[in-house]
Amino acid sequence: MAEDVFFVMNIIGLVAFAITGAIKSIRENLDLFGITTLGIMTALGGGITRDLLVNNIPNALRSVGDMSFALVGVWLAVVLHKLFKEDIRNRYFILIPDAIGLSAFTTTGAIIAYNSDVSFFGIIILATLTGVGGGIISDILLGKIPSVLRDDFYASCAIIGAIVFYVAIVSGLDTGSAGLLCSAVVFMIRIVAILYDWKLPRIE
Amino acid sequence: MAEDVFFVMNIIGLVAFAITGAIKSIRENLDLFGITTLGIMTALGGGITRDLLVNNIPNALRSVGDMSFALVGVWLAVVLHKLFKEDIRNRYFILIPDAIGLSAFTTTGAIIAYNSDVSFFGIIILATLTGVGGGIISDILLGKIPSVLRDDFYASCAIIGAIVFYVAIVSGLDTGSAGLLCSAVVFMIRIVAILYDWKLPRIE
Amino acid sequence: MAEDVFFVMNIIGLVAFAITGAIKSIRENLDLFGITTLGIMTALGGGITRDLLVNNIPNALRSVGDMSFALVGVWLAVVLHKLFKEDIRNRYFILIPDAIGLSAFTTTGAIIAYNSDVSFFGIIILATLTGVGGGIISDILLGKIPSVLRDDFYASCAIIGAIVFYVAIVSGLDTGSAGLLCSAVVFMIRIVAILYDWKLPRIE
Repeated sequence: MAEDVFFVMNIIGLVAFAITGAIKSIRENLDLFGITTLGIMTALGGGITRDLLVNNIPNALRSVGDMSFALVGVWLAVVLHKLFKEDIRNRYFILIPDAIGLSAFTTTGAIIAYNSDVSFFGIIILATLTGVGGGIISDILLGKIPSVLRDDFYASCAIIGAIVFYVAIVSGLDTGSAGLLCSAVVFMIRIVAILYDWKLPRIE
Repeated sequence: MAEDVFFVMNIIGLVAFAITGAIKSIRENLDLFGITTLGIMTALGGGITRDLLVNNIPNALRSVGDMSFALVGVWLAVVLHKLFKEDIRNRYFILIPDAIGLSAFTTTGAIIAYNSDVSFFGIIILATLTGVGGGIISDILLGKIPSVLRDDFYASCAIIGAIVFYVAIVSGLDTGSAGLLCSAVVFMIRIVAILYDWKLPRIE
Repeated sequence: MAEDVFFVMNIIGLVAFAITGAIKSIRENLDLFGITTLGIMTALGGGITRDLLVNNIPNALRSVGDMSFALVGVWLAVVLHKLFKEDIRNRYFILIPDAIGLSAFTTTGAIIAYNSDVSFFGIIILATLTGVGGGIISDILLGKIPSVLRDDFYASCAIIGAIVFYVAIVSGLDTGSAGLLCSAVVFMIRIVAILYDWKLPRIE
């Protein structure tokens, strides 16, 4: 059951992340190769980086599904861009799938990290990186300071979720239940953060 | 025979890519370490990234030859910069070796990807990345949006070549012949793209 | 004995590098997640990249110590920023620990590279990358051209140290002594470079 939930959440996330990345690059006037690359990297970049760090050949290169969903997202971005003629990244029909993606990716990252030979810190880093790495890579490719480093309560949701995952595992929960808990926490905090426009403090 | 052809093409590519990267960084006023780093990364960055993704220790770190040819390219860039006092990257004596490099690197990438455990998409991505990855990395290091994402019909040649490689393999050709075919296709399309100034469409 | 010296030097380096990275990002107005990420990446990024290149799961993800010292550095940066209200990166109490870090990281990189299956060039690259990679990554995340590519006699100290290490090994010294020699050389050259404000030549 948990498997099926993650499977669906993961697809929603891949499509939503690819839309976000492609829209971002359409607005920066990239060509079709650039738009496709940015869409794909936003969707798959976090997972690819995580797989590199735990020494696996990235799943995104071995399977056909992930790439296909990312390409669907790129196509949808081109269509939506024409229909809405505005930056749709802040519309609810993008923000909510994006939040689902963030929770699914964070959870996948936490589970893979837990099954690798890494420390507590390693689990937090790999879970967060799986969630936000794609966005960071695509911002770097666009020559921008990654927005997660500057604004918004976004990566923080992933960090909190990863800590909840770790505590749940240490408390004796199985990986599936700990993963569901992690997903739920990330999603709920992210939604509240959007509604109340939370920000992390700065150091003046 | 195919081996010898690739060997020579690869050397031409390493030198041409290193020249391009070093010239780019001279124009950005980097110091000697920066120029050398940019030249080396433009020549070797694509192959290093590909090797990382298929879980090999990068060949560029194990062999002595690749680095040596990259260093020759850096030295040539310094000499050519003084002689020509202009941006020589668009002169035919750079564009043609660069096209040879693009085809050699794309083909090497396709062959290595085919021998690894990756999907159809994985072959396309790794072949393209081997061809254009070095340029992307050096543009990122210079704080620019990678030019392949924005202009020119460059990465597209690698993608088409990789698809041709895959179709040839599926049709029963051996790796050597499929590789030669891939190289020829990439090189010929790239030359036509330069002559006719092809561009990919944008999304307005 | 050599082990203990490196152990202490490494800790000083982790804290100093994290302070530098965090201060840099406070000045770029990042939020708390951004500051922490930049501090951690400046301290651990070089070693993580090196571990990736020699195909290890990064030590920074497996141990708890490295991350802890990096976090101490981030905390210190926040405190020091309030106390000094200026860019403390050029103050001697940062420059000297930073020079110690550069020598410790370069040496660790050289030793790990020597124990891997890489060429002479591979040792130089991996040693230098371990020393300067964290700074490069954090500059990229801030959308800047990495300062080591442009100014200062910094990476050059690491390169010279790595060559000294290699010559020492080839001359028959054991890894421990070659490492101590490498550290001493990097540190001494770096200090002189700071005092005399050395720069590498540019190509006009």
